Amino acid sequence: MRVLGIDPGLRRLGWGIIDMQGSRLRHVANGVCESDSADDLATRLLSLHRQLSAVFERYAPQLAAIEQTFVNKDAVGTLKLGQARGVALLVPAQFGLPVGEYAPNKVKKTVVGVGHADKGQIDHMVRMQLPRVEIAGPDAADALAIAICHAHHVGAQTMKIRA
Amino acid sequence: MRVLGIDPGLRRLGWGIIDMQGSRLRHVANGVCESDSADDLATRLLSLHRQLSAVFERYAPQLAAIEQTFVNKDAVGTLKLGQARGVALLVPAQFGLPVGEYAPNKVKKTVVGVGHADKGQIDHMVRMQLPRVEIAGPDAADALAIAICHAHHVGAQTMKIRA
Repeated sequence: MRVLGIDPGLRRLGWGIIDMQGSRLRHVANGVCESDSADDLATRLLSLHRQLSAVFERYAPQLAAIEQTFVNKDAVGTLKLGQARGVALLVPAQFGLPVGEYAPNKVKKTVVGVGHADKGQIDHMVRMQLPRVEIAGPDAADALAIAICHAHHVGAQTMKIRA
Repeated sequence: MRVLGIDPGLRRLGWGIIDMQGSRLRHVANGVCESDSADDLATRLLSLHRQLSAVFERYAPQLAAIEQTFVNKDAVGTLKLGQARGVALLVPAQFGLPVGEYAPNKVKKTVVGVGHADKGQIDHMVRMQLPRVEIAGPDAADALAIAICHAHHVGAQTMKIRA
């Protein structure tokens, strides 16, 4: 099963893809879709949509997951993130995939073992689980963590069904 | 010039289209794209994307405008609206149209004459300017108001360029 994780953002939208073979995970690709803050909002969303669609076309993931957004007091930031997240949810749906959603704490707990892990720990554990992989920055590392989290939960479900 | 206005929302996304011939406005169509709250978020965004794309395909607007979102203290609501708004901005961009953005007060001031007009007044003024038009509810009326607002501002600009 090929799993894609998305860490949504308007300026930088991280993505990471892994293959799950039983309990083994193999890295496929990771990267960041970027939009230019000098462009107007609709143009930026179109650019993110095109870049993310190209990732789906190239790698044909079979499962997709996204981080649940932490809603904070910065309403303007929440709105910006929401708009990017709308596009990030739309693309997998256009490719016929349901989208798993995981709270940041759930991702951390699955990947690092504790819910309050910081960015550095996530990055470290992702690199431990996917050795010798070149990671395109913290947003791509987060996206790989989301993919790993989804792979674990889907894998656990599949084992339950088989048992 | 054919102008489409959008009043974004996740559950109900209003749209309204008018033709602008000099200073005359003619109603073309209006409606509401709806998504089912029983569906997951990605499915709802996909449904809104399809419905709004179909409106663009059918009516081929040449200009588009959307209401600037009023960011409030309800962060969960802001995020939901942001996600729908992301799709509402994406569709015109996919059809090659720039998207005008107007603050609610600007729309009210243009259509009603005062920035603090309530929903009822907007509805009334839209019906005055587009007589005998059947309007598909308050979201569609707001969308027509946004289209009228955009038509006025683009019309005024064009006259300035000609003068």
